[in-house]
Amino acid sequence: MQMSEARFEHVLGVEQSAIALAKRYGCSVEKASIAALTHDYAKERSADEFRFIIENKGFDLNLLRWGNAIWHGLVGAYFVEHELGITDHDILEAIRLHTTGAPQMSLLSKIIYVADYIEPGRDFPGVEEARRLAVLDLNQAVAFETKQTLQYLIGKNVPIYPKTIETYNQWVAKHS
Amino acid sequence: MQMSEARFEHVLGVEQSAIALAKRYGCSVEKASIAALTHDYAKERSADEFRFIIENKGFDLNLLRWGNAIWHGLVGAYFVEHELGITDHDILEAIRLHTTGAPQMSLLSKIIYVADYIEPGRDFPGVEEARRLAVLDLNQAVAFETKQTLQYLIGKNVPIYPKTIETYNQWVAKHS
Repeated sequence: MQMSEARFEHVLGVEQSAIALAKRYGCSVEKASIAALTHDYAKERSADEFRFIIENKGFDLNLLRWGNAIWHGLVGAYFVEHELGITDHDILEAIRLHTTGAPQMSLLSKIIYVADYIEPGRDFPGVEEARRLAVLDLNQAVAFETKQTLQYLIGKNVPIYPKTIETYNQWVAKHS
Repeated sequence: MQMSEARFEHVLGVEQSAIALAKRYGCSVEKASIAALTHDYAKERSADEFRFIIENKGFDLNLLRWGNAIWHGLVGAYFVEHELGITDHDILEAIRLHTTGAPQMSLLSKIIYVADYIEPGRDFPGVEEARRLAVLDLNQAVAFETKQTLQYLIGKNVPIYPKTIETYNQWVAKHS
């Protein structure tokens, strides 16, 4: 596993937050730890490596239109499974969904999704509110993070992966 | 055609703006007028009427999970075609896309999409900027409106129809 020192610090921070949330919500601490330590495993892979896996391992070819931000989770889980030999479905799903979320998420997936957002090294407007919600109500934390992330991305004219909108529609939006 | 006085005022405002934009950008003034006058034709139809058309006339059944805000354009064009006998493809597309936009839009569709947003009766933060852009660069006006609308809807926790994100990704987002 190759990564910069900053990323290593981030990964340890996510592990710390994930373990705390696992204890808080009765999830396996071991799975939370492993998922946190491996969630960014593929982040520094080249675009060519991702494209090869997408094209040859049965992924939706629409993924080719996206980049590392989307690939490192959704496709990154493939590297974790095949290079690290981790086969636990909960852990792989948590890695897969940690950036985009999904309409349906396991407890572990929610924990990694939220831990990635609130780990001690994070510093951005709203992170304190996210930390407060995380210990209070994990589902509310998922909703808060999803809405904040979406508003941030749109404010910066960043493309939105369609799955992110499905996550928003499930967790944030209220049908009137 | 049944509609409230407020809606009638709105429709006349959209027609006025659409005609001005049609002249500005070299689009058929007649088509702009007809599309504007009929764009909200189905807005006051009941949910049952929309559901019947969606279920029996070959529409994507996922539309059933949405409501009038999405139906009155995408499905409303069906009523315009079959009740008013308007068969012009440009006009029907402009009605269909006037709320959600689309990654690909004809000149007339852009004009109706923008005219609906900037007509003289509209009064909300950003409408003056939208009016300024509309005469300057229609594509920029489409982008501005799409981004503003998305931010407004997310701020209010309103569900986002997936097509709206496709519109955003095409017109607003910059792949880095």
